[in-house]
Amino acid sequence: MPQYNLHKLSTTAPKKFDKDTTKAETEKIVGELNELQNLLYAEGQHSILIILQGLDASGKDGVIRKVFGRMNPQGVDVVSFKVPTEEEAGHDFLWRIHKNAPPKGRIMIFNRSQYEDILVTRVHGWCDDKLAKKRMKAINDFEELLQEHNNTHILKFYLHTSAEEQQERLNERMTNPAKMWKYNKRDFEEAKLRNKYYSVYEDCFKNCNKPEWVIVPSDQNWYKEHLIAKALRDLLNGLNMKFPTLQAQGA
Amino acid sequence: MPQYNLHKLSTTAPKKFDKDTTKAETEKIVGELNELQNLLYAEGQHSILIILQGLDASGKDGVIRKVFGRMNPQGVDVVSFKVPTEEEAGHDFLWRIHKNAPPKGRIMIFNRSQYEDILVTRVHGWCDDKLAKKRMKAINDFEELLQEHNNTHILKFYLHTSAEEQQERLNERMTNPAKMWKYNKRDFEEAKLRNKYYSVYEDCFKNCNKPEWVIVPSDQNWYKEHLIAKALRDLLNGLNMKFPTLQAQGA
Repeated sequence: MPQYNLHKLSTTAPKKFDKDTTKAETEKIVGELNELQNLLYAEGQHSILIILQGLDASGKDGVIRKVFGRMNPQGVDVVSFKVPTEEEAGHDFLWRIHKNAPPKGRIMIFNRSQYEDILVTRVHGWCDDKLAKKRMKAINDFEELLQEHNNTHILKFYLHTSAEEQQERLNERMTNPAKMWKYNKRDFEEAKLRNKYYSVYEDCFKNCNKPEWVIVPSDQNWYKEHLIAKALRDLLNGLNMKFPTLQAQGA
Repeated sequence: MPQYNLHKLSTTAPKKFDKDTTKAETEKIVGELNELQNLLYAEGQHSILIILQGLDASGKDGVIRKVFGRMNPQGVDVVSFKVPTEEEAGHDFLWRIHKNAPPKGRIMIFNRSQYEDILVTRVHGWCDDKLAKKRMKAINDFEELLQEHNNTHILKFYLHTSAEEQQERLNERMTNPAKMWKYNKRDFEEAKLRNKYYSVYEDCFKNCNKPEWVIVPSDQNWYKEHLIAKALRDLLNGLNMKFPTLQAQGA
């Protein structure tokens, strides 16, 4: 069982990784991902669900742009889950999630996810421990449904940044004109709740279904991108996909 | 545990029920249902899912028209599940079902349902026992999600008709101009598989979640309508719903 003490887990790249070498390697992997995604789409037997979680300014948007931005948009979708709409709030919390589950042949990226219903909600006391436990069971059942009944392969990434790095990034949003659109006063208040977030995240990591969460040291974007690209490449390679033959197409 | 031997369960109304008295009583209940549905909609705390299953010509469409046809359409929806579309087939079998789950305040009627994936598919050998078992677990988990996380109250009705009554109704589709649109040559072939259908239905009744299935003797439409209207009326009455006060509306 992996260790999930977020206070102890590193937010930076291991020493052996050199920035330039790693970036070049990532560049190569991103090229491979394009080919693999094309094969996934053509074969149409598997679906991929990538879940991105992390505190504010942990770099979720960045990884989507850098790692997935050059894939064929015909086979990749992204959904950002914000505060539920009135229609969504009228349903169970997994309704809007299930609607966006990936069909066979496609990759879906969740920028935040079903897990928010046991994270931000718990930190703010809108969801107590008992309800959180019920929701975790529902999430586990739901992921089993996707895995067992639609060949969905799930990757769960927690982008792990230090308090200092987070503060720096939030501050940059007040000075860099290209980042001001992300400024939100409340983020500074949320940042003070880091310890509470750690504790609900750790509980979630421990009690949720396979696959295990990948804790991604994310203070350096180049390392974060490398790790995520590599995890997806390895997953896709492991599926032993094949292009359908003419025969399979009924010729 | 209720008895589920379909060969032994009656398809006709118990002797003590008189047609005219029962019809008058149903008429009264349908009026009550209108009031209760308005209250359900106004209160917005509960949702109702009605599942109708039965062999061909068992009268699913009729019960929808007669019992639900006079409700406010703003609060009642019906979905008929047919052969999955290409988009639906790209997802897990519950994807299209969940999308149509009722939001709070509303009544949803499923004309056929998720159960077809362990019924017609099993009779024709497209789903083996092992897969059927996995699907039953997924269905149970899914219904638990609706029940536990959206106050959804589920009623499951199996419309039970005799082979003779079914044959008569299928024949009528060849002679009555108002019924010919329902004629389908294949229904006559399916009717021959009654024993196989009974066996997969019985397995489903035994292995599925609460609430228990209600086996509705359906050879006489007036009795079938009575039983279903009454079951819904009793369920809604039991919810102790109240109109929200001005205060609750923030006045």
